[in-house]
Amino acid sequence: MREVAILGIGQTSVGEHWDKSIKELAGTAILATLNDAKQDTADALFIGNMLSGILSKQENLGGLISDWIGLPGIEAEKVEAACSSGAAAFRAGVMAVGSGEVDSALVVGVEKMTESLPIETTEALATAADADYESAQGLSFVAINALVMQLYLYTYGWKHTDFAPFSINAHSNALHNPYARLHEKITEKDYISARMIADPINLLDASPIGDGAAAVLLVPIDSFNKYPRRIINIVGSASATDSIAIHSRKDPLWLSAAEISAQKAFDQAGLAPADIDFFELHDAFSIMSVLSLEACGFAERGNGPRLGLDGSIAINGKLPITTRGGLKARGHPVGATGIYQIVEAVQQLRGEADRTQVRNARIGMTQNIGGSGATIITHILKAQ
Amino acid sequence: MREVAILGIGQTSVGEHWDKSIKELAGTAILATLNDAKQDTADALFIGNMLSGILSKQENLGGLISDWIGLPGIEAEKVEAACSSGAAAFRAGVMAVGSGEVDSALVVGVEKMTESLPIETTEALATAADADYESAQGLSFVAINALVMQLYLYTYGWKHTDFAPFSINAHSNALHNPYARLHEKITEKDYISARMIADPINLLDASPIGDGAAAVLLVPIDSFNKYPRRIINIVGSASATDSIAIHSRKDPLWLSAAEISAQKAFDQAGLAPADIDFFELHDAFSIMSVLSLEACGFAERGNGPRLGLDGSIAINGKLPITTRGGLKARGHPVGATGIYQIVEAVQQLRGEADRTQVRNARIGMTQNIGGSGATIITHILKAQ
Repeated sequence: MREVAILGIGQTSVGEHWDKSIKELAGTAILATLNDAKQDTADALFIGNMLSGILSKQENLGGLISDWIGLPGIEAEKVEAACSSGAAAFRAGVMAVGSGEVDSALVVGVEKMTESLPIETTEALATAADADYESAQGLSFVAINALVMQLYLYTYGWKHTDFAPFSINAHSNALHNPYARLHEKITEKDYISARMIADPINLLDASPIGDGAAAVLLVPIDSFNKYPRRIINIVGSASATDSIAIHSRKDPLWLSAAEISAQKAFDQAGLAPADIDFFELHDAFSIMSVLSLEACGFAERGNGPRLGLDGSIAINGKLPITTRGGLKARGHPVGATGIYQIVEAVQQLRGEADRTQVRNARIGMTQNIGGSGATIITHILKAQ
Repeated sequence: MREVAILGIGQTSVGEHWDKSIKELAGTAILATLNDAKQDTADALFIGNMLSGILSKQENLGGLISDWIGLPGIEAEKVEAACSSGAAAFRAGVMAVGSGEVDSALVVGVEKMTESLPIETTEALATAADADYESAQGLSFVAINALVMQLYLYTYGWKHTDFAPFSINAHSNALHNPYARLHEKITEKDYISARMIADPINLLDASPIGDGAAAVLLVPIDSFNKYPRRIINIVGSASATDSIAIHSRKDPLWLSAAEISAQKAFDQAGLAPADIDFFELHDAFSIMSVLSLEACGFAERGNGPRLGLDGSIAINGKLPITTRGGLKARGHPVGATGIYQIVEAVQQLRGEADRTQVRNARIGMTQNIGGSGATIITHILKAQ
């Protein structure tokens, strides 16, 4: 496969965009991306989206969005892998450009979630779980994660408070990201006293949903001599699956698909965990940050919370995470999240991350999780 | 891109499979495919599906189905492009294997539609149209096609009866396909007197929905020396879009995305329409057969019905179409249809098409349409 790089990025803020339809959200991010890349077209469009059919009664986003952005005729399709739809679409774009079938590909992640009733959104999100053996039994998504977190606390003896640093760090970083949904500094006291959602997950363990879109433009790296821009190269790209229902997994506290996809991405890049300068992980719930860090080799099994407690995850720490606010504070417009992570990693690698800039950031990793770990997609980006 | 070929095929019958969930349908087709290919695993799984989220409350099919077929861990994702989801997933598989990212890919198209109330299915199918400017105005999918057919009759002066050969041919071919939904011979008299659905589209102009799954296994062609099997090579693969709403198109009677994708596929293959031995086209409604034949260069503009009237489309005609029953009689489980077309083309090219075998079939074309022409994907297969 020929090498692929990111030429442009764009995003909308994450929030309640009641004045914008799904195509307008996607279009805004795509046009920002084309402007950033100083291009006016692309050969193909890959769309990461999970819920448009259920919540907006709109499928066929390929035709809808390519038409709306003024490029009817180009190849376009939607890729769905629950909350990892964004990274799945990104990987589809990488393979399309890498294979030589197209010479440039836009990838947009888009989701519109806040227009529906909360119960509708909760039910729609539960389609990421096993419909027969989880959702049909009344398990919402937060309930599934609560079971996992409860088991983690019981198994390894951590206290709920030990997870506070993950939420505090995310909120702190989001203060400097104008596109973030939440601009609210929180303290450990706020974390401890937050309203309980599904014991032990409280409001400040959970990421907020939102409307939003983020996009990138992919081109072959050998075309970069045409562009006066720092090359952000995709050096690792891998996707893996696990049993969809947590009760089917040998170890519900181990994200096997994170381990497989991260290991593949490391191997492709010829890198090890110690080489990663920052990690945009999938903190849909604080427990997921911990499981992701462990499965990727950044922490020993059962020791993930230590990276929060010892300050490793801070911007000036050993392994900064969620540097632009993460899902927790930038927000989690599910099918768009994977592309927000990529866009934010590119900001870091270009040195455009403002007051949350990681010093000398050259290699960034992103990881997008679908369901409670059923689909996990890992990318490693490198500034040339 | 390295060349890609089809090593195995499998399918379930199209029908009302009330005893089978979506994962069981997909699993049945996939296991048949692995058996056919004499393999027991694959590196990746691409799933063509449109409606699982809306009708089965189940997204994240990648995790669900890879788990169910006993291959948790492999890369897997769903691709959606309305009724062309099957071909879109197939093309994603072709690019994945072609790029070298994976060495084998299963592609399954699966849809479960008959368990829902008819009004729910009709509403779900309308998500393929423009939600704001078509569906919200009360246009169902058959209504959109009725407007197109009405305009066609008016513009070119054909009579409704002139479309009869397309339905009669499809039903006749399906008699010899054990997997087809309808095994009913129909006559011109049946066609004329069929119940009206949306004037001028009557029941025998329209394809039936259904539950079903079809699958293929893709491998690089250079690995074929390992396999004692006729090579079915993918020599053309292209996807294109058009405005999603028909009123936005300069000419609502011209499938621009069919023209673009067919032309690209012909160019890739170094072939012209005259080289095609048979054509599995997307006869969701009889008008779509005509528009597809015209846009791909098999008939002059406004002259598509002639290929039915002069017998060209019959098994022993100049350009046999819908050789195993087409959408009209094999049935149209929407996200699976594109893979059924590929499977049937492979049957022809292997000489396994029984009493509807096209003589000396060496080059077959398939075309899958999403929405009323918003996404159209064309493939050309060649027996080596």
